[in-house]
Amino acid sequence: MKLYYTPGACSLASHIALEESGIEFDSERVDLFAGEQRTSEFLRLNPKGRIPVLVTPQGVITENIAILMFAAMANPTSRLAPLEDPFALARMQSFNAYLATTVHVAHAHGPRGSRWADRPESLEDMKSKVSANMAAAFQLIEDEYFVGPWVLGDDYTVADAYLFTFTSWLESDGVNPTQFDRVWQHHQSMLERPAVQAVLNRERAAGS
Amino acid sequence: MKLYYTPGACSLASHIALEESGIEFDSERVDLFAGEQRTSEFLRLNPKGRIPVLVTPQGVITENIAILMFAAMANPTSRLAPLEDPFALARMQSFNAYLATTVHVAHAHGPRGSRWADRPESLEDMKSKVSANMAAAFQLIEDEYFVGPWVLGDDYTVADAYLFTFTSWLESDGVNPTQFDRVWQHHQSMLERPAVQAVLNRERAAGS
Repeated sequence: MKLYYTPGACSLASHIALEESGIEFDSERVDLFAGEQRTSEFLRLNPKGRIPVLVTPQGVITENIAILMFAAMANPTSRLAPLEDPFALARMQSFNAYLATTVHVAHAHGPRGSRWADRPESLEDMKSKVSANMAAAFQLIEDEYFVGPWVLGDDYTVADAYLFTFTSWLESDGVNPTQFDRVWQHHQSMLERPAVQAVLNRERAAGS
Repeated sequence: MKLYYTPGACSLASHIALEESGIEFDSERVDLFAGEQRTSEFLRLNPKGRIPVLVTPQGVITENIAILMFAAMANPTSRLAPLEDPFALARMQSFNAYLATTVHVAHAHGPRGSRWADRPESLEDMKSKVSANMAAAFQLIEDEYFVGPWVLGDDYTVADAYLFTFTSWLESDGVNPTQFDRVWQHHQSMLERPAVQAVLNRERAAGS
């Protein structure tokens, strides 16, 4: 298997989950700033022109929500998701869906507002709301959804890798992450995990 | 179990999936135009103030992506998802994630642009891009992701209910749905399913 990722981008979640799963995989950096996601070679892999992309022996998987669960299912002994409990699994998917549909989208209105509007003034307007939207979403996570010590409680899951990724973006989005006590403690706990350290080192070594 | 939904809104996907699953459930209309999703009673169920919400004996599930898979897992004999095949399940989740993170978000910039910008001119700018973004997303679905006759091929899944929901929105988003031959044929096939008819009738009877 092979993961296509961009250092520090949302693909970090899938990268960590695959590393935690113990599955063997290769990884290849995609330079978004150089436009490598728009080459014909990459578009054959993923016509959406986005990362992450996971190439498996059966075919290509895109979207963090799908790759995260695939990583958990591909090696159930890694216990990265409550696969035997439909309700608990739904709660995990719900948390990941909130990150993908609300948190990631709120962030994207900073660097990628041109997806949804054209005028420079509109893009500035969007940028000015990013920090408030990110702070509101993280307050909701802190108050309502984060169980602790991991996202879903005592058991570490792929949702932890996904939350960690967005917590890493808060400062550059103009939000002080330390105001969210439990989420910030979670971030420190993630940094102590060998799999997280291995992935961060690999992504740094590949360039930014 | 009880589903909170708004007629014709994105909760239609979860509503159809639950009906197809054969699970017994009640349903209750939430009037978004009257602001019922902002009452303290509703916010206790879902602090996000959104639909759909599924109340189960174990607790509350939000987000279509999560409810759709829960509906499939709660009654595996309904065969609404390829639960035994991690790759096929990942492809289903990937399709649903694209609908949730790209298609639904593209649509939302019409009626709900104020989530991401404040100035009236910005909201108009956003509205003017909705039809092009929706058309581009559906062209990608038509060309790359829709297998046929159902979304994933020969087997009907919850992804069909989710696609049907957004195809229903195309006309009001300024996109002619009949230009997407296979997706439009899919829409007609969905309308022939007894579960889809039952849900559409129930939602219509509850008011719009």
